[in-house]
Order: sequence, then C-alpha cells, then structure tokens
Amino acid sequence: MSRITGQVRIVGAGLLGASIGHALVMRGVDVILHDASRANVSLAIDYGAGRAPAEGDDPSLVIVAVPPDATADVIASELAAWPNATVTDVSSVKSGILSELESLGADLTRYVGSHPLAGRERGGAISARADLFIGRPWVITGGQGKHRRLVEDLVIELEALPVTMTAQEHDASVALVSHVPQVVSSLLARRLNGASEPAVGLAGQGLRDTTRIASSNPELWVQILGANAAPIVDILKAYRADLDAVLDALERPAAPGARKVVAEVLAGGNSGVARIPGKHGQSKRFSQLVIRVDDEPGQLARLLTDVGEVGVNMEDLRLEHSPGAQFGLAEISVVPEAEARLAAELEARGWTLAGASE
Amino acid sequence: MSRITGQVRIVGAGLLGASIGHALVMRGVDVILHDASRANVSLAIDYGAGRAPAEGDDPSLVIVAVPPDATADVIASELAAWPNATVTDVSSVKSGILSELESLGADLTRYVGSHPLAGRERGGAISARADLFIGRPWVITGGQGKHRRLVEDLVIELEALPVTMTAQEHDASVALVSHVPQVVSSLLARRLNGASEPAVGLAGQGLRDTTRIASSNPELWVQILGANAAPIVDILKAYRADLDAVLDALERPAAPGARKVVAEVLAGGNSGVARIPGKHGQSKRFSQLVIRVDDEPGQLARLLTDVGEVGVNMEDLRLEHSPGAQFGLAEISVVPEAEARLAAELEARGWTLAGASE
Repeated sequence: MSRITGQVRIVGAGLLGASIGHALVMRGVDVILHDASRANVSLAIDYGAGRAPAEGDDPSLVIVAVPPDATADVIASELAAWPNATVTDVSSVKSGILSELESLGADLTRYVGSHPLAGRERGGAISARADLFIGRPWVITGGQGKHRRLVEDLVIELEALPVTMTAQEHDASVALVSHVPQVVSSLLARRLNGASEPAVGLAGQGLRDTTRIASSNPELWVQILGANAAPIVDILKAYRADLDAVLDALERPAAPGARKVVAEVLAGGNSGVARIPGKHGQSKRFSQLVIRVDDEPGQLARLLTDVGEVGVNMEDLRLEHSPGAQFGLAEISVVPEAEARLAAELEARGWTLAGASE
Repeated sequence: MSRITGQVRIVGAGLLGASIGHALVMRGVDVILHDASRANVSLAIDYGAGRAPAEGDDPSLVIVAVPPDATADVIASELAAWPNATVTDVSSVKSGILSELESLGADLTRYVGSHPLAGRERGGAISARADLFIGRPWVITGGQGKHRRLVEDLVIELEALPVTMTAQEHDASVALVSHVPQVVSSLLARRLNGASEPAVGLAGQGLRDTTRIASSNPELWVQILGANAAPIVDILKAYRADLDAVLDALERPAAPGARKVVAEVLAGGNSGVARIPGKHGQSKRFSQLVIRVDDEPGQLARLLTDVGEVGVNMEDLRLEHSPGAQFGLAEISVVPEAEARLAAELEARGWTLAGASE
C-alpha cells in the first residue's frame, strides 16, 4: 500500500518525470501524465508511467519535471489550476525558482522545492526506470506542514534518501559536486578538438575519466548553468585563482616557491578527493586489487564467482581498457582488512594480480 | 627466443623499471637491476625482475627508469660507463631531457629517447607487472641505426605499440592527454576541501570520474609538470581563456550572446570527447546497456555468464555506485549492432534494464 493517497499529476514526461511515474504506478498510485509534447506523453504512457489527463482529475500532489527555463512558470500555473494540491519540482537549481515564483506572485505555501540527485546521461522517457532514485539523495528545500510531509512521503516511497537543505545551501552544493565538474570537464574536452590523431591515440584512462561527462547534453546544461550562475561563478573564480597560481609557477619554474605552489595544488587534490564518500554512504576509502582478465568468454564471470566464494564483499568493480591488447584489468575495491586475504586466495586460484591503484 | 640479445641493465627499480625487468626475465633475457636504494633493488630482485650487478657485466642496452629530475644525469653517466651500449629512458617528458644531455656534453648517438604510455596510480616495484605495456603506445622520439632498432625490438618484445614522434610532438601530446588533465583534476578536487559533509554527500559518478586522478602522487607529478612546463602552459592558457569566457557569460547571463558562449563550450566538449579512441584502438563509440545488479553474492557473475551465453562481446564494463542502496548498476558496452539483441535476451532472463547512458 502506497504512502501516497490521492492522484499524482506529473508535468513533463522526460527521464525524471517518467521515472517517478513508473515508480508510483508500480505502487498502485493513479498517475496522470502531461507534457507539452503529445509524442512524449504517448511514449511515457505506453511505457507504463501513467495515464492521460481526464475530466474530474483532482491531484493531491503535482510534480513539475520540465526543463529549467520553464519550471517556475509551470509551477505557478499548476498552483493556480489545483488550489488544493501540493506542488513540487525536480529542478536541479532551487533559489532561482523561488525568486521567479515570488515575482510571479505565486502562492508559495503549497510549493515544496525538491531535487532528486539522480539521472543518466541520456534522457527522455525511454531511459526512465522506476528504480532511478533508489539510495540516491533527494534534497527538500522548503515547504511546511502537510505539504512538506507529502513530498517526504514521495521521496521515501521512491526509496531515495531525504536530505534537508535551504535553497541556497542546495544550490551551492550542487554547484560544487555537479555543475562545476561539468564545466571543468567540458573545457578540458574542448582542447581535444584541434589535436592530431597520434596525440589522442596516446589517451589513457585518466583522460577518459576526466572528460566522460563532457558528452552531456548542451541544451539542458546551458539552462542549468545559467540558472545556478552565482554559486558556480564563486567556485570557478576560486578554481581560476588556483589555475593562475599554477600557470605562474609553470611559466617561471626556477622562481623560488614555484615548485611548492604546484606541490600544494596536487596535495590539495589528494585531500579533496579523499572527502568523497564511497559506496553505501561511507567515507572510508577502500583498497583495490587489480586482476588480469583475459578476453576469453567467461573469464570475468569466473573471477567474480571466485571472489564470491572467498566470501569477500566487492565494494566496487572497474574494468580497464587495454587498447590493442586482448585482455583487461579488473579493479576490485574491498575493505582494507580483506585485501590481503582476497589477494592470497585469488592467486592460489591461479589469478594474476597487478599492483593496485591508489 | 627473445629479440633482445645481450644483457639489459635497468637503472631504477620502480614501477616501470621492475615491470620491464619482469617482462624481459620472462623471455629469458639476462636483466641487471640497479637502484640508488638497496631496498628497492632487493624487492625487485625478490619479485623476479632481474639480478644484482656483477663484475664483468657488459649490457648491450641500458634502460634508465629513475624519477624525472635525475634522468638526464643518469643517462649521461650510463652513456659514459658503457661505451658500447644503447641507452634509453622511460621519462614522460622528452625535450627537456635532450636539452640537459646536450648541455652535459653527452654522446647522443647512442641515446634513444622513448616513453611507454603505461602505468598505475600506485608505483613501486611491488606494483610491477610484466604485462603492463601490452597494447599500450610506446613513443620513440629519437635515435638512429642499430641503436634505434634495439629500442624498437624492446618495445615489440614487451608487446607495446611503437609510435614515432619528435620530442616536441611527444611533449605536446602528453601535455594534452595526460599532464593538463592531471592539473585540471587536482584543481577541481581541491575545491572539495572546504565543503560541508552534506555537500559532498550529494556526490555522484560525475564528480568521482573528474577527480579520480587527483589522488596521484604529488612528488612525482611536481617533477613531471615542471619538466614539461612549456607545452602544459600553452594548453592551460587556452583552457583559461575558455574559462574566462564562461565566467564572463555566467556573471552577466542576460548579456547578448552569453548563452551562446556557454553552449559552444559544452558542444565543443561533446566533439572533443568523441575524438578519444575506444578499446582495441578503435575510434567508434559503443552502445551501453545498464543492468540492475542486486548486492547478493554471485549476481554480477551470473550477469556476465548470461552475457557470455548470449554470445555478445562485452567491450567494457563499469559498475556504478549507488550510495545507500543495496544494489549497483552495471554498465556494459557493446557494439551498437548487438545492443537490441542483448537487451532482449537479458530481459528474457529476468534482468532489469535501465536507460542507457550516452
């Protein structure tokens, strides 16, 4: 039995809207889907994310999941159209939405700002999954009383982790962990456009990782970055100040203190990356074992079976490219206490271990 | 039978030196190991990377694998100590080494600059593997006649892919694909130091990927960046110019053309990242399937077994974190032509597929 009583109306049948729809339909909720595009709605309905609007609809909860530029307007019109409903959104920027709503004179007592930290690089209803939100943080930035409780119920229903923040704290946080990384990665990838083929042929995993998110959708991200400009600018200015210091040190490498500047940036990078929590929300770092896996069918499966038999929990797995080679290197993360035993057991079973990465 | 005739002397028993030693010992070559640190040499010898120096040694090839700061001096002294030997190095920066050697008055006819694009984040002889170089590019930047041929034989023997470049072309290339990404990633990770725990708690795969290499060893990288400063500065200046344009556009988002600037950077990121070659040296992009894998033992192994049974080759595998959740998402890359069939077969076997990432 769902925590959500009454109908839920979702405006915007893209990745997030359709995923929420899927998840609620699975739990027996009557989900109404609306989208400016009839094709989007038809697709989402066909995939089981809800039904078309009908005479007599009376949603208790409206979820606005439209692109950033349109969000405030749609929230305002939905607040007006359904005078008893709680209205929330999934926008990745919260302060701007609030300001816009205030200038539109909207009734903010029934608006609860929220943002699920979930998604995939490819969007659209076709990519939607009911389990998209499981275990992911879902920030709630406002609202009160029964309206807020309804949105909390939604978050818990979808098995996400509710996180309370003010709109400003939220925007600064996503600027740091999501928006600035996007800018930094796109700027780096941009440098590859003029490069020779032999040069890019030397690429390794480091370049691949730092530029992976540079394949994000420009139309969506232009809106996100524009909407969260102020916190992003703050962080990028600090980034640029560090970049200037490094440039200065590299241009005059013999100057006193030049090496120290560069060393400090690198060490600061070490400590910064160590702050990112690992799997299951834990902050501790794991140990890595690297095992050679030949390209023959079943090899990787056999490795994982052996790991399972040894009884060590695999916290993370990464398979590394070996351009031109007929094998891969599987990097398995385990708790440090288990590392030695797993290494010994795998070697005893004939696996070839390499030095672990940091 | 090895292509390499005669003894090979390796100076520097760290990750690269010991790995080369391992690979040659496996092929029956008499490998002599030397390192300024007796502990390093003992460790490398214990791991089977070669033997200690002895009276009467007469190497035909000397490989210098010491940290960047010491490389030119060691090359020069080895050239002098072994008047008949070819001397090469594995340094990740080539022009600077040449300049230093010229100013030391070394005999450059027997020196062949080279650089294997291989490595792991954690160094040292303990991380060494004979197969470290398989399929990886190994750039050769100089030398002639029999000396050059001997180094080419070494590269081919270790199953790497010989790539010819001038020292300048090499340095510009590694600045682009390795050194600048390191700087960019460290600068980004540095921003996390002052962040609140709730903020870093929102971290997703995008942040993890863009900051992964920020855990690199500062002592080594200070030397690398200092040694390749000029090409790095060129690229970082272009990077900074783009960063300034984005900052400008974000600070004045209503200005005409502001959105266009940001959109162009993002689109430039798209095209740049598409230039990076994929597995087995191919430039084509693969399709991704994302499958939910519960945290129960054996689940991932069962998935891979099923993929194998379907008969589709897995080009790449990536397991994604789900903080707080008791499952992961396995992202499998396959050739586009096989995507639909594999998806259908896996779903028929009970697997839950999610929307694929780009």
